[in-house]
Amino acid sequence: MARPVARPDASPDTALVGRHAVLEALRAGQPVSRVLVSRTAHGAGPLRDILETARSRGVPVQTVDARRLDGLAQGLPHQGVAALTAAQSLVGLDDVLDVARRRGEPPFLIVLDGVEDPHNLGAVIRTAEAAGAHGVVVPRRRAAGLTPAVARAAAGATAHLAVAGVGNLVAALEQLKKAGVWVVGADPDAEERYDAGALEPPVALVVGAEGRGLHRLVRERCDRLVRIPLRGQVRSLNVSVAAALLLYEVARRAGRPRRN
Amino acid sequence: MARPVARPDASPDTALVGRHAVLEALRAGQPVSRVLVSRTAHGAGPLRDILETARSRGVPVQTVDARRLDGLAQGLPHQGVAALTAAQSLVGLDDVLDVARRRGEPPFLIVLDGVEDPHNLGAVIRTAEAAGAHGVVVPRRRAAGLTPAVARAAAGATAHLAVAGVGNLVAALEQLKKAGVWVVGADPDAEERYDAGALEPPVALVVGAEGRGLHRLVRERCDRLVRIPLRGQVRSLNVSVAAALLLYEVARRAGRPRRN
Repeated sequence: MARPVARPDASPDTALVGRHAVLEALRAGQPVSRVLVSRTAHGAGPLRDILETARSRGVPVQTVDARRLDGLAQGLPHQGVAALTAAQSLVGLDDVLDVARRRGEPPFLIVLDGVEDPHNLGAVIRTAEAAGAHGVVVPRRRAAGLTPAVARAAAGATAHLAVAGVGNLVAALEQLKKAGVWVVGADPDAEERYDAGALEPPVALVVGAEGRGLHRLVRERCDRLVRIPLRGQVRSLNVSVAAALLLYEVARRAGRPRRN
Repeated sequence: MARPVARPDASPDTALVGRHAVLEALRAGQPVSRVLVSRTAHGAGPLRDILETARSRGVPVQTVDARRLDGLAQGLPHQGVAALTAAQSLVGLDDVLDVARRRGEPPFLIVLDGVEDPHNLGAVIRTAEAAGAHGVVVPRRRAAGLTPAVARAAAGATAHLAVAGVGNLVAALEQLKKAGVWVVGADPDAEERYDAGALEPPVALVVGAEGRGLHRLVRERCDRLVRIPLRGQVRSLNVSVAAALLLYEVARRAGRPRRN
């Protein structure tokens, strides 16, 4: 993954805010130029891990006015701490397939069709990384990119997982199919249950926005459609929950023979 | 579930905001006294379903200034629409067990230990309802109750699922065990994987706050501890994702013989 070099004085769109996101970025070895802590939060117990990790990594810690953090946070809760980081770029589809190749594993991807909410995008990145996926694919035109809100919702996982931005999602699915990857879409009207078996790599899971589902052209490109049963009254699951169930359905099979 | 009667002029804490939450509440038959639509949003296509459903249910629709919605939304995105509803109360643990009894099913519950974020609480309620659970159990002292933020994140599921508030979580787990319910806690250090099998009702899943996990006394009360494998670098899953994986692990077994 090509990433720009950290700038010493990062602009607001390269700040991570919140304890969890800052700690994960430091632990991950993500390029952090500086940690900013608000005056009131500096002595607080929950920040101890952050301060110790920053120290051990040689990252300067600066005490600032809470208003400085408010400005960086752009409305997100910062919990008294922020990290100035190098902005992360979207990569290409080939880069994500390369991750799988380098690991010697069949590709395991998740494709988001029209998921624009940064909280959901970040949550999917976090779960995909935890499930052992090689990358997330989003339409470049629509996705907000890896903004602070996305990085924060991803709890630092944007530092570990490739996120590919593609110009045309349908073309990307065709490219994946040519690479031997099975394209499996989540669709509430599918006959097959997601947990019916055989959800395993090489696979690209495709999940659409909640309430609207997959675009027709995207759905038509899928090799298989599966549904997550809804046993109650609600009509849909949160997209990050639907993605998690599919990702871990793949992980349950992929993970078993090799480890755990 | 005992619920207070809808008041014609509900206070801010009894408003649902956002298209999804309002539509689900109307479809669910939740007591809605009035739907408020902002002047600018009134003619918008996405509101058509809401207006039609309100009309068919005989719920008055009122056009208001966007600022009125801002006030009701308390910082949440309202997307130009709100519903004034009866506030929903937390019920007792017995009420949740009664739901299972009335359905003739072994109890299937999820217990949240220290999950205070309304977005996470709402997300768990939504997934629990979809997975066919009978209820969610939260500590009464800590939980914010079923606020608009919770109801919105639950996408209307608070109308369908009993949420019990208990004074003492440890005592509640003891009560569940006496009622023959297996108490299964999520713990990152557990030896057993969550998907190793035999996660089935009567069961109460116990999930703690991310990063902190279960309180010691709660963990000690669990009959079994299971872990969700993390195959990447991130240290934890979002609590609503962890809850979803456990809930659907139960649903996969509970659901199979009876339907789908």
